[in-house]
Amino acid sequence: MAAANVKLTIAYDGTAYDGWQRQRDRPTIQESLEVALGRMLGHRVVVHGAGRTDAGVHALGMVANFQPERSLPLEAYRRGLNSMLPPDIRILAAEEVEPGFHARFSARGKAYLYFFTTAAVMPPCRRLYCAHFPGAFDLEATRAALPQLIGEHDFSSFEAAGSRTRAGDEKAERGRGAVRCLTRLTLERDETGWGFAVGQSQAGGASYRLLVAGDGFLRHMVRNIAGTLIEVGRGRRRPESLGELLALGDRAQAGPTAPACGLTLWQVYY
Amino acid sequence: MAAANVKLTIAYDGTAYDGWQRQRDRPTIQESLEVALGRMLGHRVVVHGAGRTDAGVHALGMVANFQPERSLPLEAYRRGLNSMLPPDIRILAAEEVEPGFHARFSARGKAYLYFFTTAAVMPPCRRLYCAHFPGAFDLEATRAALPQLIGEHDFSSFEAAGSRTRAGDEKAERGRGAVRCLTRLTLERDETGWGFAVGQSQAGGASYRLLVAGDGFLRHMVRNIAGTLIEVGRGRRRPESLGELLALGDRAQAGPTAPACGLTLWQVYY
Repeated sequence: MAAANVKLTIAYDGTAYDGWQRQRDRPTIQESLEVALGRMLGHRVVVHGAGRTDAGVHALGMVANFQPERSLPLEAYRRGLNSMLPPDIRILAAEEVEPGFHARFSARGKAYLYFFTTAAVMPPCRRLYCAHFPGAFDLEATRAALPQLIGEHDFSSFEAAGSRTRAGDEKAERGRGAVRCLTRLTLERDETGWGFAVGQSQAGGASYRLLVAGDGFLRHMVRNIAGTLIEVGRGRRRPESLGELLALGDRAQAGPTAPACGLTLWQVYY
Repeated sequence: MAAANVKLTIAYDGTAYDGWQRQRDRPTIQESLEVALGRMLGHRVVVHGAGRTDAGVHALGMVANFQPERSLPLEAYRRGLNSMLPPDIRILAAEEVEPGFHARFSARGKAYLYFFTTAAVMPPCRRLYCAHFPGAFDLEATRAALPQLIGEHDFSSFEAAGSRTRAGDEKAERGRGAVRCLTRLTLERDETGWGFAVGQSQAGGASYRLLVAGDGFLRHMVRNIAGTLIEVGRGRRRPESLGELLALGDRAQAGPTAPACGLTLWQVYY
């Protein structure tokens, strides 16, 4: 009999964690899950995540899989894990999947959301989930820059200095270098509840939600795209310059890495 | 020369505080403000809040006033206080007001927002700002109950056991007993960002925002109204029973006090 293979859909508030991946002496999401599963199953379990999120990055639809030595009812994973995990990590769904399914290698793509506000004063209840770029912001200029990044490009300009394989990126092992395909890139006003909007009106500014979907992402790629696009909105970079920036392939020419707290891993596609 | 009188509009994340009002040995919003203002002005300052929020309750538009011994530029209060206060308390605005203005006694009314979700699993990034009532919820049935509470009524059924003056309620000293006037009471779906909506779709359920505005509020009145209305939505109380409940004047007949984290003081009217 083939070993069972279980797929988990996981949401987390990354504030208190040093990212997804297990590390020595630092709290991570992966470790929390492996400890809880180990207690539940009575044997050590390795949880394979769809990718690695950085410290402070959140998730609404992270996917991971693991192979238990014996089968439990699927509902036991959701209820049982949620009763053992801290409330900043929640299992949204548990499904049985085919033996060959691997959360990382089977992924066809991912979608991220990047939240930021231009309010003069950061609304306190959003400070852990939204980046702060106070001041004037030109939404239309920023939108004009988006089409240049959509489609297949070499995203070296938006890749963190450091090793590519550290990104936990599903394309890294496939010999594509820094070539990735962005399938969706949109920027919308984000009226996150009346309350937040009121805080904004009293402190000026507005809030925005950048959606970035693609077949794979280099390390810090979404945060570097966000940081660069926000520079366009703030008038520090021309909207039409993004194509040149891609062609340069030079990380030093792109904008700063936007703060981790604004980033949420939204969905993983299979 | 009349002493200066400064009005502050304040937003806070109440998670880490034991409410608004200064207490011995417990962190409160009022104490944090008074400590920061004392450091800034070099003399002890009493900050008068528009009301007292309970432990864990948030604010987007709390109002307070204080009388400094000497005048500073108004911008210094906003920038200076925000540089000294922790990031979970933010000054949105500072204005000079007439000497007779008192944040509590001058208030004509307040508006609160109560956020809750019926998702099977609580989205982690909303857990500190939203109450959790998993399961079926009938929005239309709950809405049908709202008109019975609008207008002037004796709200004894929704008043916390304990002394009325503890509520910090602007009407308490005016001999109206438990009679208050609700001017607005609405219940809406709350699509708080795409991300949150996605978490919901994966875990079932939806999120809601109750808006309660009136000329004054008894202690726990908004949370008791929320708890009672949510019972209607869950089919545990008839929509048409709210009028009888008001007439009974018996706290024991109303629903439970809904959790503090779902409540946000939205605005104070003058």
